[in-house]
Amino acid sequence: MSRPDPRLSINQATIKYASLADALRVMSDSGMQSIGLWREPVAEVGLDRAARMLADSGLRFSSLCRGGFFTAPEGAERRAALDANRRAIEETATLAAAGAEGSAAVLVLVAGGLPADSRDLVGARERVVDALAELEPEASAAGVALAVEPLHPMYAADRAVVSTLGQALDIAERFPAASVGVVVDTFHVWWDPDLLRQIARAGAGGRIASYQVCDWVTPLPADVLLARGMMGDGHIDFAPITAAVAEAGYTGDIEVEIFNESIWAEDPASVVARTAEAFERCVGATAPAAR
Amino acid sequence: MSRPDPRLSINQATIKYASLADALRVMSDSGMQSIGLWREPVAEVGLDRAARMLADSGLRFSSLCRGGFFTAPEGAERRAALDANRRAIEETATLAAAGAEGSAAVLVLVAGGLPADSRDLVGARERVVDALAELEPEASAAGVALAVEPLHPMYAADRAVVSTLGQALDIAERFPAASVGVVVDTFHVWWDPDLLRQIARAGAGGRIASYQVCDWVTPLPADVLLARGMMGDGHIDFAPITAAVAEAGYTGDIEVEIFNESIWAEDPASVVARTAEAFERCVGATAPAAR
Repeated sequence: MSRPDPRLSINQATIKYASLADALRVMSDSGMQSIGLWREPVAEVGLDRAARMLADSGLRFSSLCRGGFFTAPEGAERRAALDANRRAIEETATLAAAGAEGSAAVLVLVAGGLPADSRDLVGARERVVDALAELEPEASAAGVALAVEPLHPMYAADRAVVSTLGQALDIAERFPAASVGVVVDTFHVWWDPDLLRQIARAGAGGRIASYQVCDWVTPLPADVLLARGMMGDGHIDFAPITAAVAEAGYTGDIEVEIFNESIWAEDPASVVARTAEAFERCVGATAPAAR
Repeated sequence: MSRPDPRLSINQATIKYASLADALRVMSDSGMQSIGLWREPVAEVGLDRAARMLADSGLRFSSLCRGGFFTAPEGAERRAALDANRRAIEETATLAAAGAEGSAAVLVLVAGGLPADSRDLVGARERVVDALAELEPEASAAGVALAVEPLHPMYAADRAVVSTLGQALDIAERFPAASVGVVVDTFHVWWDPDLLRQIARAGAGGRIASYQVCDWVTPLPADVLLARGMMGDGHIDFAPITAAVAEAGYTGDIEVEIFNESIWAEDPASVVARTAEAFERCVGATAPAAR
């Protein structure tokens, strides 16, 4: 097939069982120009070596997954979470500097769910703001954008208390746009009746730090964390969402991030080729212009 | 135990495997004052007989589940759905007249999902409005309130394209408040950052046709349609939501509607007793005043 869309970045989690070295090699061999990384496989080889490997690959770096999980009340667990986020900020800066021109120093943040035995959703949401207030100066100093990702409301109890793009923007807008933005991930927000308006708002404020695409498939699998599907296999109409993101001024890479057992079981090179083809068919035509 | 809260109504689906006769008897024997019915068990005995049975039970009727499923484009399927809704309106009026004083002529509407092979979420949502425009005069003539129920966004593709209370109100407010309202069901809306504001809006407009409670339990079961839990078994804080519904002026029955395989497997009388106890503990203290 032809070369992948230059705007396409594949998030490493889509080929979860590939090592960092294998992931970088498969992307390069497939003609990909960009990759999104996860902290764990980077830690496996060590940050410095990961940065050299990324530089050697010639790929852009589109984001690091993930920080966040800072809804715990004050105490040791919260301090450990904030320290982990500080390390993630440094990792993001290092990897963005090592990636090819056009790399994005973006750290994706998943807020975290309700603390154990707590039903205080309002309080957990307030602690997300508190955590950002603590981390934002460090992100700003490191030139990193903290990207608050609203997760689908079905994860509100156990994974992320930030549930809509509007809510993510309400939070992000308390901080400078250069250091706190949002992620627009089609899987999480496609259902939102207010989506296009909130995308426009995010764009007007310069808050779109990352645009991610994958599909919503039904029936949902037994583990709803693995419900993401390849573009075209589900119910999402990518054209209006992608056009809205483009109109909102976003010109960065578009990441495909799919957690799906059957895709993980495939050969990584075949997944990358299939992802590039699905992207071209479902997203490419309406995608924002390349950087 | 003491008699159940007079405001408590148990939706028949909570004891799904009981016949209408058994459901009415169990409720009466348990000291319950109100019941929510489903069309299918009513149809099993016939509407007239069901109405007589309800009248004989001395129970109030709090709602009929359910109409809706009218997102199909124009054609035979859509016409059949609208005709089914017309029959449901008549059934609602008949049952409300047969129920004890304080019965509510409320027909719960589940919008329906995307039509087969369609990704046109905007179009499906517009057809919900079109269907209401067709049905509202008939509901009004019959003295029935059509209650648009926003379902959790995880059902947006395959069950209900109405996903938030705000969206349900945007739809309902195009019609007279006496004939088109909304359902506030904690399971579906508890995660919404805008929830309390939308409840106040619904109350100010006289649009709360039904308040339903059950809990959000994790992990979600393999079939997410059966994810509802008994109050207290999950993550929802019922107090602020119930207080907001009360402050919004709602004084009707509060329905417990739980789809849960393990609860369905229990003896109905035991489910009713346990529901009354959980209601008292989690909801009762902050519930609106009885009619």
